[in-house]
Amino acid sequence: MTSSTAYQDLTARFHRVGVIDDALGLLEWDQATMMPEGSAPARAEQVATLRVLSHELLTDPKIGDLLDACGETSGDDGDGWRAANLREMRRTYLHAIAVPADLVDSRSRANAACELTWRRARQDNDFPSLLPSLREVLRLAREVAVAKSEALGLSPYDALLDSYEPGARSAAIDGVFAGLAAFLPDFLQEVLDLQRGRPDPIAPEGPFPVETQRALGRQLMRAVGFDFERGRLDISHHPFCGGSAGDIRITTRYDEADFTSSLMGVLHETGHAMYEAGLPEAWRYQPVGGALGMAIHESQSLLVEMQVCRSRPFLTYAGPLMQKAFDGSGPAWEPENLYRLYTRVEPGFIRVDADEVTYPAHVILRYRLERALIGGDLALADLPGAWNDAMKELLGIVPPDDRLGCLQDIHWPGGDFGYFPTYTMGAIAAAQIYAAARRANPDIEAHIAKGEFAPLMGWLGEHIHSQGSREVADDLLTAATGEPLNPAVFEQHLRERYLT
Amino acid sequence: MTSSTAYQDLTARFHRVGVIDDALGLLEWDQATMMPEGSAPARAEQVATLRVLSHELLTDPKIGDLLDACGETSGDDGDGWRAANLREMRRTYLHAIAVPADLVDSRSRANAACELTWRRARQDNDFPSLLPSLREVLRLAREVAVAKSEALGLSPYDALLDSYEPGARSAAIDGVFAGLAAFLPDFLQEVLDLQRGRPDPIAPEGPFPVETQRALGRQLMRAVGFDFERGRLDISHHPFCGGSAGDIRITTRYDEADFTSSLMGVLHETGHAMYEAGLPEAWRYQPVGGALGMAIHESQSLLVEMQVCRSRPFLTYAGPLMQKAFDGSGPAWEPENLYRLYTRVEPGFIRVDADEVTYPAHVILRYRLERALIGGDLALADLPGAWNDAMKELLGIVPPDDRLGCLQDIHWPGGDFGYFPTYTMGAIAAAQIYAAARRANPDIEAHIAKGEFAPLMGWLGEHIHSQGSREVADDLLTAATGEPLNPAVFEQHLRERYLT
Repeated sequence: MTSSTAYQDLTARFHRVGVIDDALGLLEWDQATMMPEGSAPARAEQVATLRVLSHELLTDPKIGDLLDACGETSGDDGDGWRAANLREMRRTYLHAIAVPADLVDSRSRANAACELTWRRARQDNDFPSLLPSLREVLRLAREVAVAKSEALGLSPYDALLDSYEPGARSAAIDGVFAGLAAFLPDFLQEVLDLQRGRPDPIAPEGPFPVETQRALGRQLMRAVGFDFERGRLDISHHPFCGGSAGDIRITTRYDEADFTSSLMGVLHETGHAMYEAGLPEAWRYQPVGGALGMAIHESQSLLVEMQVCRSRPFLTYAGPLMQKAFDGSGPAWEPENLYRLYTRVEPGFIRVDADEVTYPAHVILRYRLERALIGGDLALADLPGAWNDAMKELLGIVPPDDRLGCLQDIHWPGGDFGYFPTYTMGAIAAAQIYAAARRANPDIEAHIAKGEFAPLMGWLGEHIHSQGSREVADDLLTAATGEPLNPAVFEQHLRERYLT
Repeated sequence: MTSSTAYQDLTARFHRVGVIDDALGLLEWDQATMMPEGSAPARAEQVATLRVLSHELLTDPKIGDLLDACGETSGDDGDGWRAANLREMRRTYLHAIAVPADLVDSRSRANAACELTWRRARQDNDFPSLLPSLREVLRLAREVAVAKSEALGLSPYDALLDSYEPGARSAAIDGVFAGLAAFLPDFLQEVLDLQRGRPDPIAPEGPFPVETQRALGRQLMRAVGFDFERGRLDISHHPFCGGSAGDIRITTRYDEADFTSSLMGVLHETGHAMYEAGLPEAWRYQPVGGALGMAIHESQSLLVEMQVCRSRPFLTYAGPLMQKAFDGSGPAWEPENLYRLYTRVEPGFIRVDADEVTYPAHVILRYRLERALIGGDLALADLPGAWNDAMKELLGIVPPDDRLGCLQDIHWPGGDFGYFPTYTMGAIAAAQIYAAARRANPDIEAHIAKGEFAPLMGWLGEHIHSQGSREVADDLLTAATGEPLNPAVFEQHLRERYLT
């Protein structure tokens, strides 16, 4: 077998896995948007079966042989894409074979069971009732972490992290987050002091009919560049961007008393969608053709939502469209008022409700705690106390109960350890990338103020979206922005937005 | 390996195939209802990949070994289900391995290409332009027929037929259709003479708003027994019943000028849905747990639509609901007028527009011609003439052009030979089954006149739906109605409905 034949065989195998993953994307979208509740068992069977199939195809020992046959040189195709594809194939394969099938199975059962228990425990504010099943979930997550650690030559926590954001390492994140943690508390006080000295922004008054919200959302999605010939906007309980790169399904939910939350959510998901739609067509279904990881994915949604759509230029364009859509009048609809409203800062207990300034504190807290949990340095029984201490330190507030504290997120009960830091890595990357785009094309904001996203999206397409998984995040960021992940630009963005 | 171990292994393999087929059902439903057009290439990739996977799993030589290891006795489980499951496994396996993978592939390409050519040829009324690609489709269909013929020990045409309706044989169909073909022409004249002597029924006047049609459709679906907790009603260009047994998706399309066509279509698909929903839960995903074949499937849709919903008892119940929904008034809304309207007979050129009396003639024509095509007794170039001669003989009318003649159906360009007879086999079976149900419970029609479907559905559930594929159609019919497929009851039904 020549290395070229081996590579062809590998691409065919990974192609198949990629297509099955796309089919799973559609099944999961349907489950959240269209599927009647009683069909859940049938759908669970379909999803489980396709996941097992995909895992079996990926862990076929033949893939290891083929990767060996390719060696280190056969990927040399001049422009580096093939070498990068082989690197991603190896990484994907190593992650997949590291965990024995019975551990995959018992883990997915334990996670599913704990998620169910968690829903009840959160509702009842009853952390002790969650403890036994969460202990099992943590035990299995640590087992996976150790198995991957040995296979990948990483620390257990980094091995988990690497499955969400390839190449991300806690040593680097420690530095980034330490800087932010030092910056944020004082900065937050400054922002709050400044806010207190100003009149409160005025919220537009509803009701805001769902149909009007939907039409406005679609109008702004189109402006950003979303292609409704290859995607849809629908309703689900938890908003997401799903489907597949060739058929992108984003969702939202509507509140007739407040259109902002849905609209900003739609724009956030549109950022994810633009990334998926802009991935390199020539490498579709190959590991190197996929999105890089959760941090870069989140950078694209936060760039659109936070960097752009909560900015003055965007609201200069979109404010009048909102006012017209809802037939509004009065000072609440002034773009400057909307800007103040959409950049309002207020420390709170709940991460998903947090603003741009306080959100990183929620993430840093979780990052510290989950590292301690995976490392065995924190017992689960001590989690509520450790949570509240960290809230006090980072945000100066203490949750009155666990429902508003360590019970709020589904991630840990669902077995997701190593995911949380990618939210704030994404926020930081978003600031870096948007700053670099504006340096390259200083007219970007003037275009956005006219509803023209093409200059920004053209730059993102070239420097981020079309790069797929060719490089790890820090190399992608260095190529696109001149430096690896660095909180300085993000901090500068916060200063400019919140202290002026 | 014990035969019991072998059987367990087989059930696991067929379970997986069954679940993949369910996932395909959802992907295909989404394609017809929700998917934006530009996503077609991505979806085609998903569907093709899952089909190939399913086919690979099914043709794994290990299945043959396992079936051999099971022998003839291991299926003996007292109640016969396991033996029947093994029989269906063998049949499915033989069908799958009979056709080499490259023939499967070249056939699916040829069919897809011919379908595209056909759309244009039909539009342009240009049969000669279809000839080359249709020749290729027929050539490959005959190759498949011969391959299956050798594997199954059936005639080539019967081998095709068996893949749509297990156990169906043309020798039996010949007899059934010959009787019908002798009965229909004179009977049709009698019906038309009788109709001419009566005042024409009056069509209710629209417009009929889509939302009202949808609500009425859902109301009647619920009355029949459709479970919206495990299914949906949506819109597609061509109505169908899809999804899977645990998540049934039926579709329709609406015309604001005429609600009947959509409503009767919805009730037709509801009949299919009730069959799927009533399949034996304990055998879900196993070959024996699936629907028996197209003829019995069609018997369930035609039983609901034709036998029940175009009957006086049903219209006694539903007529006032229709009138109320559309706020109608006048004689057009009288149940007796609606009954006359919904049982109007009129010979026409187009099969899908045909009424209950003339529909079998369209099917018999196609059955004769496709048998001659597969047998090599009719050249494709002679198809238009043969078509028109048969129309003249069976319905007394000659299509003015091929668009209204041999170009009207997608089946042959799509490679479906052996499917057509199942429509009329289903119509005949529907009459037999409904008659048997009323013999067993003479109150069924009185209940239907009150909108109560439970007595009918209870009987169908017990005698048809819950039987899955345990027996072939003639045995199922004999157990449920006392005799195999027999057109006499259908003819009697036509006489009672159309000559009184």
